[in-house]
Amino acid sequence: PLCLCWALLGPAAAAATANIVLLLMDDMGWGDLGALGEPSKETPNLDQMAAEGMLFLDFYTASPLCSPSRAALLTGRLPVRNGFYTTNGHARNAYTPQDIVGGIPDSELLLPELLKKAGYTNKIIGKWHLGHQPQFHPLRHGFDEWFGSPNCHFGPYDNRERPNIPLYRDWEMLGRYYEDFKIDLKTGESNLTQLYLQEALDFISKQQASQQPFFLYWAIDATHAPVYASKQFLGTSQRGLYGDAVREIDDSVGKILKHLQQLGISENTFVFFTSDNGAALISAPKQGGSNGPFLCGKQTTFEGGMREPAIAWWPGHIPAGQVSHQLGSVMDLFSTSLSLAGLQPPSDRQIDGIDLLPVILQGQLIDRPIFYYRGNELMAVRSGLYKAHYWTWSNSWEELGKGIDFCPGQSVAGVTTHTQEEHTYLPLLFHLGRDPGEKYPLSFASEEYQQAMEHISGLVQQHKDTLVPGQPQLNVCDQAVMNWSPPGCEKLGKCLKAPESDPKKCSWPH
Amino acid sequence: PLCLCWALLGPAAAAATANIVLLLMDDMGWGDLGALGEPSKETPNLDQMAAEGMLFLDFYTASPLCSPSRAALLTGRLPVRNGFYTTNGHARNAYTPQDIVGGIPDSELLLPELLKKAGYTNKIIGKWHLGHQPQFHPLRHGFDEWFGSPNCHFGPYDNRERPNIPLYRDWEMLGRYYEDFKIDLKTGESNLTQLYLQEALDFISKQQASQQPFFLYWAIDATHAPVYASKQFLGTSQRGLYGDAVREIDDSVGKILKHLQQLGISENTFVFFTSDNGAALISAPKQGGSNGPFLCGKQTTFEGGMREPAIAWWPGHIPAGQVSHQLGSVMDLFSTSLSLAGLQPPSDRQIDGIDLLPVILQGQLIDRPIFYYRGNELMAVRSGLYKAHYWTWSNSWEELGKGIDFCPGQSVAGVTTHTQEEHTYLPLLFHLGRDPGEKYPLSFASEEYQQAMEHISGLVQQHKDTLVPGQPQLNVCDQAVMNWSPPGCEKLGKCLKAPESDPKKCSWPH
Repeated sequence: PLCLCWALLGPAAAAATANIVLLLMDDMGWGDLGALGEPSKETPNLDQMAAEGMLFLDFYTASPLCSPSRAALLTGRLPVRNGFYTTNGHARNAYTPQDIVGGIPDSELLLPELLKKAGYTNKIIGKWHLGHQPQFHPLRHGFDEWFGSPNCHFGPYDNRERPNIPLYRDWEMLGRYYEDFKIDLKTGESNLTQLYLQEALDFISKQQASQQPFFLYWAIDATHAPVYASKQFLGTSQRGLYGDAVREIDDSVGKILKHLQQLGISENTFVFFTSDNGAALISAPKQGGSNGPFLCGKQTTFEGGMREPAIAWWPGHIPAGQVSHQLGSVMDLFSTSLSLAGLQPPSDRQIDGIDLLPVILQGQLIDRPIFYYRGNELMAVRSGLYKAHYWTWSNSWEELGKGIDFCPGQSVAGVTTHTQEEHTYLPLLFHLGRDPGEKYPLSFASEEYQQAMEHISGLVQQHKDTLVPGQPQLNVCDQAVMNWSPPGCEKLGKCLKAPESDPKKCSWPH
Repeated sequence: PLCLCWALLGPAAAAATANIVLLLMDDMGWGDLGALGEPSKETPNLDQMAAEGMLFLDFYTASPLCSPSRAALLTGRLPVRNGFYTTNGHARNAYTPQDIVGGIPDSELLLPELLKKAGYTNKIIGKWHLGHQPQFHPLRHGFDEWFGSPNCHFGPYDNRERPNIPLYRDWEMLGRYYEDFKIDLKTGESNLTQLYLQEALDFISKQQASQQPFFLYWAIDATHAPVYASKQFLGTSQRGLYGDAVREIDDSVGKILKHLQQLGISENTFVFFTSDNGAALISAPKQGGSNGPFLCGKQTTFEGGMREPAIAWWPGHIPAGQVSHQLGSVMDLFSTSLSLAGLQPPSDRQIDGIDLLPVILQGQLIDRPIFYYRGNELMAVRSGLYKAHYWTWSNSWEELGKGIDFCPGQSVAGVTTHTQEEHTYLPLLFHLGRDPGEKYPLSFASEEYQQAMEHISGLVQQHKDTLVPGQPQLNVCDQAVMNWSPPGCEKLGKCLKAPESDPKKCSWPH
């Protein structure tokens, strides 16, 4: 009701094939934006984007780790449904390192595949992360163009034990990180964000000239360790290298929005900014961001691991300065984008995303839960302002002993546990309005607890009763599938010899 | 340099006797404003005030506790100079409970005393907290009018062992809390903020009508435990009762600003919003606020205890949407107010505050340190982005054992210590840009440490060499001095019999 403050925008609201630009950050935290209280306040363009559009304060990813989160965004489905999870251990976060055998199943329908039916041209710039074997290539799953890499920009590797990660243009590799696309780990210098920016601007210009609707998925990774920034941004932030990367991204977002305006297509282009998971506090302070007032970070199902910065921008359609407390999810970007294209979501499978256009255009609030998964386990559920933890786990004592800490400086007794603690019979319940930091579990004996849990229990029962888990894609690893000889390598003299196949269960410690 | 983006505002900038409105909150934290990332974002009027004025992100109080902070604001001097500290124990926070014998010394020159010389009418609304014995009465220290109380609104008391706290109008008491001015501890209902708002609006109207410059010190206390809100605000916040109080304050600030605009005097009225110390995390979640991403809260010299929300607003003088990283202090409000009145600060004593008008009107950045005191000890110093801790202490193990925790859910090894740890020979150094949460001390061996500490050591040496401590006012307590028979009590039949005088050292556990 707080947001029911403008009239229905008739024809504009009904634009049938708006362009779609999804700006997906990597490991950027809720607290990294000036508009969300980062004390250095160095994101003038993102703050302006929020001031001109709608800022979502309760927006979530579908997994506290990168690959499952991205698979969920593009399928509109929880990772446990689309296969982006593991059964190698209980409640383990898994992703797609370059020895992963699995990837996005052909049976999954990705957003770009569906948008093609409405005449969209689809481009992914940046990190794909849904598998790098040939059958998982983004151009086999609906994208028309690609400039970016299949895996994280880790390295440099030796090209003997482990090949360097390739960058693709469309079907073929262009080169490899550290060899052809430099990242200086000492200084943090790399011009990759500038390359990704130019690709975005060029694609937008081309599509505007051809008068064809487009979907641009700008999945850049400068804020994922090893964090990098271009020379002109190095040393410009109060926050060190991580802040330099944020400043360059902020500047780039500003340039993309300005480009849309200068081409006269901003009123026909829906732009959404968010991130794939919470800030990686293990990399802090030099390589990690901020989750503001929230508990813990990436890898955990506390708010710091899964609540994301989120801004919708669409001049002429979204009135300036809106704020929404709609519980949102990256999976909603699937359903919302289909709606923008005048398409229906597939009816032959469970879709977890919802169409946010009534929220964005009419200020509605839609009652829906948020499910917090870690691998194959439903760890927590949010409904309204209540969040129930069915399992708690930060990481193991063993990992903590190695200095791996997902909650540095934070410790809430019985909550940030270092053994997997089951609470399925008596969940830990928090009121996120009074206690956004998840520090004060409600009394089990309180009436408030009873009432809230009665409701949430029903949601969980319904969810579990209807859940059909997908085939887990992240169980098997094999050195032979690494990026030894990506397509196009022969033209560049960049083919490497793969070892014998030796598939093994992947090890997922978290 | 970030802010040097507008030209000198000629005649407007030189307005000689602008009205001054200081809005001082009680225990409100840096993270309580939507504009600073409170996730419920329920402060539209304060966010708008920031958007129309200048938001200070690095603004500090002079003490992590109420009385010393307020004494510092009104004298422009550190509590260790103006006497608002104790020597009963090392590094103890002391304040003015109703058995305190001391108060503001006559030798101190308060802001309203000085403003009188420029023809200002001065009013304090709300909490005085600089002593309640007759010689400390605000109307003896420069204020012309008072509506409020000398002490915190704790209670209810029995009027036998301990009298209820009186509310004054000017020289005489009007009644007592819980008796004549209700605070319902069960529901949190009290209409005090509405009374304080009406007093402010009426005073402003009266002054506007008489064409006389005024200083309004609006020191309300709804966000200090026991937290309260008026009926119309109860239950309106996602954040519970604390949020209800914040919403009512936000609404009231909006009404004050609007009133100035409607009377046509907003361009001749300088308004500053801030708080007396960090959020009281001991009272969280129902009665305490948020310090955002900062460490610990009230009572500590970590950022959560002393960094404050701060907004300057002066339409026609401060361009909209300014952000400043000037290191500011509540003591600067003394010097800045004098400057607004065309007065010079006293030259016969050390003044710690600086005139912020060059910052506010011309976007300058003035190099100056921030000193973090706890009682009689210099605990930490900030210069630029570096903060050096010379002593660390959260609270004692004994107090912690009683459940008193100033850093709930937070624990940084070697930093949030429960014994007073001396680091004077090798201070703990933090870079607050990269690490606003004070979690990662810099390596003692690093060049960065050496360079930063060389500079800070010089500042500390200079500070200590020239420091002349005031006579400590907060050492002696006596039941006989409590509010038994405040002036005016006889008219109301509210006089109580005082016990025999029995002065003792006050006990300050923190």
